[in-house]
Amino acid sequence: MEQATTTATKTVAQITAEVVDRFAATPDPRLREIMQALVRHLHGFVDEVKLQEEEWGEAIQFLTATGQISDDKRQEFILLSDVLGVTMVTDLVTQNKPPGTTESTVLGPFYREGAPKRAAGENMSPEDPGTPLILKGRVLDLQGNPIAGAELDTFQAGSTGFYDSQMPELDEMRWRGVYTTDAEGRYLIRTVRPLYYQVPTDGPVGKILRSTGRHSWRPAHIHFVITAPGCQKLTTHLFDSVDPYLRSDTVFAVKDSLICTFAEHLTPDSMARQLGIEGPYLTNEFDFVMSPEMR
Amino acid sequence: MEQATTTATKTVAQITAEVVDRFAATPDPRLREIMQALVRHLHGFVDEVKLQEEEWGEAIQFLTATGQISDDKRQEFILLSDVLGVTMVTDLVTQNKPPGTTESTVLGPFYREGAPKRAAGENMSPEDPGTPLILKGRVLDLQGNPIAGAELDTFQAGSTGFYDSQMPELDEMRWRGVYTTDAEGRYLIRTVRPLYYQVPTDGPVGKILRSTGRHSWRPAHIHFVITAPGCQKLTTHLFDSVDPYLRSDTVFAVKDSLICTFAEHLTPDSMARQLGIEGPYLTNEFDFVMSPEMR
Repeated sequence: MEQATTTATKTVAQITAEVVDRFAATPDPRLREIMQALVRHLHGFVDEVKLQEEEWGEAIQFLTATGQISDDKRQEFILLSDVLGVTMVTDLVTQNKPPGTTESTVLGPFYREGAPKRAAGENMSPEDPGTPLILKGRVLDLQGNPIAGAELDTFQAGSTGFYDSQMPELDEMRWRGVYTTDAEGRYLIRTVRPLYYQVPTDGPVGKILRSTGRHSWRPAHIHFVITAPGCQKLTTHLFDSVDPYLRSDTVFAVKDSLICTFAEHLTPDSMARQLGIEGPYLTNEFDFVMSPEMR
Repeated sequence: MEQATTTATKTVAQITAEVVDRFAATPDPRLREIMQALVRHLHGFVDEVKLQEEEWGEAIQFLTATGQISDDKRQEFILLSDVLGVTMVTDLVTQNKPPGTTESTVLGPFYREGAPKRAAGENMSPEDPGTPLILKGRVLDLQGNPIAGAELDTFQAGSTGFYDSQMPELDEMRWRGVYTTDAEGRYLIRTVRPLYYQVPTDGPVGKILRSTGRHSWRPAHIHFVITAPGCQKLTTHLFDSVDPYLRSDTVFAVKDSLICTFAEHLTPDSMARQLGIEGPYLTNEFDFVMSPEMR
């Protein structure tokens, strides 16, 4: 008759070695490296904290819910990566940034494909009564030459601190536009001053923030995803220097070189009038520097 | 005018310290410990392999798909944890197993709540023409005393290597039953010999196994989730000793003490005849030893 006997139990190190070895035949060496390192770090984590089965079960439920709340308007796993600082470490170790390139930062969970193409100076926030803001400047290469035909996929929260996709009654896109640089590499965007805002807190990630005593605010910013032929895509923000959350961004995405002090104007000049601005407004001038595609 | 300047970029160590510090105010010390260790290990992984942004993007897509394919019949995150060996490390470090307790192993992705309660000896696989198998034995405490009224939530793949939930045309439960021990702690289960089988390979985890050159087979086994008043839940398997995949289980769940050699019989004895068996059949006797609830 068979029965439970006290056989020698494997150690964590033995299990880890067995699993790592099972990935040894992975044809692609980069995938092999990633999977074997992932196994070592995951096992190391579970062993260090002595993760208990019911805690593991909670983690399984958490990860499942994080996938299931995600859709084409919302990406909760990106948000999770953001609040754990994983996105910014990836940003740092991604090897595509020669010195002089504009610094990159997180994409965030609110990017949407297919924002409308807009003419230079077109208002991408026409429904928003907030403070008018004109963004202008150039897209340059590392040698300082202007890049014509660069596309700036631009999006932001509005003056009350919400992205379009956070407003359930709203189906169309707002506070978004794709602008193209002219022959001198110039872009011109009319929008409104964004407000600081909360990352979505009604899902699994919000639960983590609450149960760990963290706030869920991000400092005000405007997103840019910039593409140009022969250049690497640049994903970045411009931050508003007066924001109260600049030093405690819940996704750790602030970089000093991306903080801008918007210039304040009481009465419109001729360009602002051309853009339909009649009262006080803000301007910001920023040149984006792109790096060439590698290899 | 503001412009990209070469400010000092943070190091990975600085980002990690900042994120770990952001969890310092977590009220529950255990949650704080887990989150801070998770951050350190995740950052360590990304830094070690220098995870590139497009690889990070693939990981986000993978995790999202893993959540979205999961439902009440299928748990792809458990399967992911299983094939990465994380489940077995958790099993090892969970501190609830005094020496003498029957060894535990993975729950697997196919457990379903609400299996039918069955009388002692009832056939839990009546539709399956496979080789009859009688499972019998006792549920005991650490002192060897029988435990009456213990419940054995039992499930398995059938003789062709599929669980009920893998058969899309099948809505009701098969190869499942909850058996209860009698006053002497005895259980008696009639079923069929299970076959080795493949974990689900039509989802994200299957893609990992294929792209890393791993097979997806598990050796034949019968699952038990055993509960009894005052005892810790025991989640385990009994494995068939003749199985070709015993040494390469794709979820690393085999433990020597759980391997059983089924006894072969050509003609039914009186008990087998009472259970409706007319030809050759198998028996296995195994005593499960439960440990008391802790604290």
